[in-house]
Amino acid sequence: MSKYQHIKELAFKANIELPKLGLVLYTFGNVSAANRDLGVFAIKPSGVPYNELWPEKMVVVDFDGQLVEGDLRPSSDTKTHAVLYKEMEGIGGICHTHSTYATAWAQAQRCIPIYGTTHADHKTVDVPCAAPMHDDQIKGDYEYETGYQIIACLKEKGLSYKEVEMILVGSHAPFTWGKTADKAVYNSAVLESIARMALLTEQINPSVKRLKDSLIKKHYDRKHGPGSYYGQ
Amino acid sequence: MSKYQHIKELAFKANIELPKLGLVLYTFGNVSAANRDLGVFAIKPSGVPYNELWPEKMVVVDFDGQLVEGDLRPSSDTKTHAVLYKEMEGIGGICHTHSTYATAWAQAQRCIPIYGTTHADHKTVDVPCAAPMHDDQIKGDYEYETGYQIIACLKEKGLSYKEVEMILVGSHAPFTWGKTADKAVYNSAVLESIARMALLTEQINPSVKRLKDSLIKKHYDRKHGPGSYYGQ
Amino acid sequence: MSKYQHIKELAFKANIELPKLGLVLYTFGNVSAANRDLGVFAIKPSGVPYNELWPEKMVVVDFDGQLVEGDLRPSSDTKTHAVLYKEMEGIGGICHTHSTYATAWAQAQRCIPIYGTTHADHKTVDVPCAAPMHDDQIKGDYEYETGYQIIACLKEKGLSYKEVEMILVGSHAPFTWGKTADKAVYNSAVLESIARMALLTEQINPSVKRLKDSLIKKHYDRKHGPGSYYGQ
Amino acid sequence: MSKYQHIKELAFKANIELPKLGLVLYTFGNVSAANRDLGVFAIKPSGVPYNELWPEKMVVVDFDGQLVEGDLRPSSDTKTHAVLYKEMEGIGGICHTHSTYATAWAQAQRCIPIYGTTHADHKTVDVPCAAPMHDDQIKGDYEYETGYQIIACLKEKGLSYKEVEMILVGSHAPFTWGKTADKAVYNSAVLESIARMALLTEQINPSVKRLKDSLIKKHYDRKHGPGSYYGQ
Repeated sequence: MSKYQHIKELAFKANIELPKLGLVLYTFGNVSAANRDLGVFAIKPSGVPYNELWPEKMVVVDFDGQLVEGDLRPSSDTKTHAVLYKEMEGIGGICHTHSTYATAWAQAQRCIPIYGTTHADHKTVDVPCAAPMHDDQIKGDYEYETGYQIIACLKEKGLSYKEVEMILVGSHAPFTWGKTADKAVYNSAVLESIARMALLTEQINPSVKRLKDSLIKKHYDRKHGPGSYYGQ
Repeated sequence: MSKYQHIKELAFKANIELPKLGLVLYTFGNVSAANRDLGVFAIKPSGVPYNELWPEKMVVVDFDGQLVEGDLRPSSDTKTHAVLYKEMEGIGGICHTHSTYATAWAQAQRCIPIYGTTHADHKTVDVPCAAPMHDDQIKGDYEYETGYQIIACLKEKGLSYKEVEMILVGSHAPFTWGKTADKAVYNSAVLESIARMALLTEQINPSVKRLKDSLIKKHYDRKHGPGSYYGQ
Repeated sequence: MSKYQHIKELAFKANIELPKLGLVLYTFGNVSAANRDLGVFAIKPSGVPYNELWPEKMVVVDFDGQLVEGDLRPSSDTKTHAVLYKEMEGIGGICHTHSTYATAWAQAQRCIPIYGTTHADHKTVDVPCAAPMHDDQIKGDYEYETGYQIIACLKEKGLSYKEVEMILVGSHAPFTWGKTADKAVYNSAVLESIARMALLTEQINPSVKRLKDSLIKKHYDRKHGPGSYYGQ
Repeated sequence: MSKYQHIKELAFKANIELPKLGLVLYTFGNVSAANRDLGVFAIKPSGVPYNELWPEKMVVVDFDGQLVEGDLRPSSDTKTHAVLYKEMEGIGGICHTHSTYATAWAQAQRCIPIYGTTHADHKTVDVPCAAPMHDDQIKGDYEYETGYQIIACLKEKGLSYKEVEMILVGSHAPFTWGKTADKAVYNSAVLESIARMALLTEQINPSVKRLKDSLIKKHYDRKHGPGSYYGQ
């Protein structure tokens, strides 16, 4: 049995969650799961329908995006995943979708304002939206540059990838990450929900204000702070 | 067998209705069922997925929010439930969700206007929206204060919890209640439907007026008045 | 076996289509099926959940709304059905729902403009919206008056119930009818689809014009005109 | 066995995908599959519900729309399909639906602007919207004229049917095509997704700009260009 069997299974299970959660149409998304000891990650093969996946079809590549094991071509977004694994030390999973509402915010090139506690339960800031890349980046090594654009945006806004596990790539779509592939998928589902509620909130009250600081802090802390009391 | 077995089963059955009704994503909601003779209620454990619940996992606490029976930590919203049970004598169940449309109205900090008979079938007034709390309340005993904010809002607006079984907590999300846990869940589903139709109504006709008094009275009375003739 | 068995089964089958089509929440809708030779119709019992229905639970009443057979109380909207059967000679079924988009148009008190061929495939005019009733009608025999309000609206607009099988009751919700109970349900589903697309059309292009006459005529005639060539 | 058995099965399988993908209500759509060697195509029979279809019910006609084999009347849109097969040499399948968002854009008579990479993954231009026909075309051989209207619109805009496999017919609904019937259905689902995201994008940011050229080119080329690297 392959020494990569475990991450192949993690990646497989995380990928097939996407259609169940209504986050993908056809093959428009991909999840990867990393093994940091081995310096590799398993990712969905490119263009293969979710109902034809199984663990053995996952493709294993290293953090430079070079093929390590697998018969199929990896996701076309593989190099973006590779950059993020290299730059974000603690993470074990990455998820990319074109989910409807998050993608609409990305296309609108707007950060998603923090309007309620559902948002604050997961992060204390607006969901960042990275600007579309310059033409030379796009014409260059596009998928690598997408990863660096994400890193640059977080840096510019002074955000830690440990606290903000989701981003919109302007004109494109969302990327999310987390300690595990499952958590990355969870973050994509939460992002889609937040994105939908934020648009509805603006439609119900066009002059709505961002959530006030005390509520942001309270809700984030009760889930993630030192005295957190959510969950088991 | 535990003497709390009955309310554990009621709470369990009511909780697993939430994902079936599309009212929750992951663990973003909780229902409780009370036994007023014993002075306790059973509530969902915190952060446990709905498909991993069973009756024995429900947590029993008293109306001060103190643990009575159960191996798991109760919902982080338990103290809000406790306050409501204490202040609303007749009720037997409470439901809290982050359902999409109701939460968007809460985030928009607007009461939901009564625009049609679907709304009037259930209450004669707009769905109230409690203002976000003051900072000292938020920094204090937050979940208790959430309960008191709900009570204060109803009092300020002159509303009886027996006639208005639902409220939006501004910047947060809805709470509903009723004689049973099932009825509280029913009220959450009705609220989500009303919230969605109210937004669509304003989009179709931005100058729409509230439902006129005679229709409000007629529809409420045929379901809830002394000569009601709806149901068996 | 009851001589009303056939219409009970027709009404039963038509009623349980409503939740499958996403047209009702809980018990917010009802369908009836008539036998004109016997001068009666079978209708859903009031307030009974769809998953607890079976043919024997249907209630049979005459065209004055008087009970003929059945152990349960008939739908609270029974008198509206009775008036429509009396006034619309050819019809064999009636359906009433609070479906989301059609109800929003009713609440907005707007007729649904004919914007495309999906609409013209079913009728040549806007979906009419009857004005809310006067207070004395509402305080009087409300459900009868709802039926007469529908008849009055069609008459005022010069519409035939044979060609326009759907209407919105202002501030309330839609009613549809047809030669059979199945056709009435079909019309409710079509109405919901038309209502949704009409709102989206206005959002995409606020200055959109009604469909031009030549297209209205063409699409209606190919399904319903003397030389119709749709279907088998 | 009929020598048309293969295309009947292709057409059958493609047709029953439509309700699974949520693209049709009742019978509001049809797919055809062509055999260019035999100069014929198989198409859905008119007005037959999707759950009553099987391969033997498909109707085979030639590229003039004349019946070749089958007991049922073919789709009322058959002549539109026939024109497209005649004018678009490479294609093997055509799909027509009244899917919600694409139809709303057609009713609004607007082309769908290219706002993101999801769109650019499939074509480099806005989704074209053909103007409604002149009255004499509508009163003439309507379904043939619909086909010619599509061809004329592509020509006028300088678009190749090989690169743009979808169009909106103004006031009506979308048509899509492709090398196979499956691909035509795929294009209808992609179009519906793009149509929905484009409306949401405009609602989130009314002053949003079209996707910039470098991104359009990059995304289209990585899937369809000479050095494409998407898929297996």
